[in-house]
Amino acid sequence: MITTDLLIIGGSDAGISAALRARELDDQVSITLLLSDDFPNFSICGIPYALSGEVTDWHHLAHRTRSDLEAYHIAFHSNTVADKIDSEAHQVLAHNSDGSQVFAYQKLLVATGARPKSLGVTAPTAATHVLRTMADFFAIEDLLTTNKPERVAIVGAGYVGLEVTEALIKRGIAVTMIQRGQEVLSTVDSAMGQEVHHVLSAHGVAVLTDQTVTEIKSAKKGYMVTTSADETIHADLILVVIGVVPNSQLLAQAGAQLDAATRAVKVDDAMRTSLPDIYAAGDLVLTKHRLLGNTYLPLGTTAHKQGRIAGATMLGRSAVFQGVLGSQVVTVFGLVTARTGLTEAEARTAGFDPVVSTSYVDDHKAYYPNAHQITIRLIADRQSGQLLGAQLMGQATSEVAKRTDIFATAIYHHMTVAEFSDLDLTYSPVVGSPWDAVQLAAQALERQL
Amino acid sequence: MITTDLLIIGGSDAGISAALRARELDDQVSITLLLSDDFPNFSICGIPYALSGEVTDWHHLAHRTRSDLEAYHIAFHSNTVADKIDSEAHQVLAHNSDGSQVFAYQKLLVATGARPKSLGVTAPTAATHVLRTMADFFAIEDLLTTNKPERVAIVGAGYVGLEVTEALIKRGIAVTMIQRGQEVLSTVDSAMGQEVHHVLSAHGVAVLTDQTVTEIKSAKKGYMVTTSADETIHADLILVVIGVVPNSQLLAQAGAQLDAATRAVKVDDAMRTSLPDIYAAGDLVLTKHRLLGNTYLPLGTTAHKQGRIAGATMLGRSAVFQGVLGSQVVTVFGLVTARTGLTEAEARTAGFDPVVSTSYVDDHKAYYPNAHQITIRLIADRQSGQLLGAQLMGQATSEVAKRTDIFATAIYHHMTVAEFSDLDLTYSPVVGSPWDAVQLAAQALERQL
Repeated sequence: MITTDLLIIGGSDAGISAALRARELDDQVSITLLLSDDFPNFSICGIPYALSGEVTDWHHLAHRTRSDLEAYHIAFHSNTVADKIDSEAHQVLAHNSDGSQVFAYQKLLVATGARPKSLGVTAPTAATHVLRTMADFFAIEDLLTTNKPERVAIVGAGYVGLEVTEALIKRGIAVTMIQRGQEVLSTVDSAMGQEVHHVLSAHGVAVLTDQTVTEIKSAKKGYMVTTSADETIHADLILVVIGVVPNSQLLAQAGAQLDAATRAVKVDDAMRTSLPDIYAAGDLVLTKHRLLGNTYLPLGTTAHKQGRIAGATMLGRSAVFQGVLGSQVVTVFGLVTARTGLTEAEARTAGFDPVVSTSYVDDHKAYYPNAHQITIRLIADRQSGQLLGAQLMGQATSEVAKRTDIFATAIYHHMTVAEFSDLDLTYSPVVGSPWDAVQLAAQALERQL
Repeated sequence: MITTDLLIIGGSDAGISAALRARELDDQVSITLLLSDDFPNFSICGIPYALSGEVTDWHHLAHRTRSDLEAYHIAFHSNTVADKIDSEAHQVLAHNSDGSQVFAYQKLLVATGARPKSLGVTAPTAATHVLRTMADFFAIEDLLTTNKPERVAIVGAGYVGLEVTEALIKRGIAVTMIQRGQEVLSTVDSAMGQEVHHVLSAHGVAVLTDQTVTEIKSAKKGYMVTTSADETIHADLILVVIGVVPNSQLLAQAGAQLDAATRAVKVDDAMRTSLPDIYAAGDLVLTKHRLLGNTYLPLGTTAHKQGRIAGATMLGRSAVFQGVLGSQVVTVFGLVTARTGLTEAEARTAGFDPVVSTSYVDDHKAYYPNAHQITIRLIADRQSGQLLGAQLMGQATSEVAKRTDIFATAIYHHMTVAEFSDLDLTYSPVVGSPWDAVQLAAQALERQL
């Protein structure tokens, strides 16, 4: 039996963040980390760029190397899978290729993340692939290199689907995207998604929206995919990237409370589960949203935050997870699309009376060379004037992501649309305007309110 | 006598903002605007880029054209100088080339801005020039074109001095900068200013710091400038850009309260002066600073904000000027330097116990191509942990300005350094990291606290 003060199951964003934070706050506490593969602290968000070849060596995807991590005196157990938690005995049963092992802990963090949703359609063996882990990456990279597929079908047009599509187009592969929603990138309102759709089409991507996959059959070469709209797509490879579900079985079996609808683990603001001395953080938990209450919104940024909180609270320190706003950004063929807060649809569902305004504003004074327009879609509550959400779109040079973060910071502080003009933002003609683009957009919305 | 509901003296940022805001809120109110030249709503911040040739036609410097403005039904009186305010009679006496004219008002806004500080050294006639108005621009552009100076001395290394220096270097003119402070760009801490200094030197600019001009004499060709360090500079043209003083004489003569030290006009949060029905906004007023109380900090962004407040309050609407943070950005030879809040020195003077940390952080994940480091210098109060100031420096592609604005928004809301990690900011490997550069810098400061 191995005994440790802190035991962490999972070596991705949440688990590593927790370990590093705990070590930062306490250089004596013993930290043990169980890792189901051999790739601690890898940036899975970078996998599309390894597929595209922009990341020339997959080793670079590690946020930190193993030796970086070992300098923090964390005991890593790679290729070790946790099988059972005994919360009363404060023990975890795990196994690796050498056999079983019991880990006894004072505090346990479960950071087992999420796993890809499956398509729910029977398909020939090895027809469909997912892209979540380094093992998935190696498998797909091997297929791309060995089989040299000419046509790939990508099911799902969320940010992973979009990034992988661009990667495959860059490799000269024909791509058809199949999207259940009425428009691609359903994390933004469809008016914004339309622009992403245009860019995809302009780069030769076939985009099918409002369709689901109903059948996958083997064809003479590759597979034949049939959709709910009776379209037929021939593909040599089918990638399914339609989201994830929480990896919560381990905690469910141990008796932890789960959200019935999503099977995500319920945690409090200190990342404590309902079981004594057991914490959870990252893609397997139900996450506090600052405008929506609890929601399932698995994101790497959130996993980092929650892990950092758990790393402190497991040591008995006070730390409070303040909640997220669903801030996200994706770049597709040079077009940057970012969001924070609520979309119009989300605002309506949440019981707000949303007022929406879309502005097209120069990123800097038009008289200075190379000004480009940013599209800024803002959502506010009619009654209170509270800013609820922002969606921005523009070129890589237009500071779209960090302009979105100004909104994220304002929404975090519950600013109204009118108050947004009070912010003292930087200005020179080279990078902005006396009222920055973000404030001009807010003023346009204010006139509508 | 011309009668009007709202009379505005000054057609630059504050005056025009007020007029536009008043019109937005009330389509009936009569608005009259007196303008001492013929260039309403020109972007004086753009003048350096007209000198460099990047703005190919100076007409483009207008934020709005005269016909844009006239669509708002504002009665413009160009080349009209206000000579006297009679606050009891609610009248302003003005003159233009045709003679005198009396304007009777219900509410008056004085937005006469600021004028360049003079050097305080006797100099041959026409030796020194300033750069504040379109007339100044025309004069200098004419000198550059006609006299073709080979050597220019620029006194003052603030943001205008830096921008004009770059413009002249681009025109092939040799530039010597003479700076009173110990380092260029004294609006940031000298460690940051040093980097700007390096860039200037690398582009062939001669930079003299810790020196003032003590004498200017005519030479065989051009002038000889002597400094307090006994340096001698030959220059064909001398530009003095050492800051501005408030144009407050008109209000002073009318009996308005002024700040004794700066001669700036005292206003309340509604932009009201001490005189009945008289408001003031822009570079002539003492400005509320969110961390420093009242201060003299003339900036175009502030003038826009204050004008917008005055435009509402003159109509009897409630609006409150929330104060500034001294947010600024300047680009010099591709290096972007931005600041918000207090520098270390300002924090110390204001009675804080500043803790400072400087981080060098990638603008996005290093594994994705073209990552560049941003320098982030943060200042916090040791006792409270409150974030007091941020100074950022980096390349144009590194979203330096808008990253500074995230800090500006956080400092506006009095966030502590620890709380800053709670912000939910956008992330993809192409534009950031799971903890954005700004949060990594805050965490480095948190470790120091």
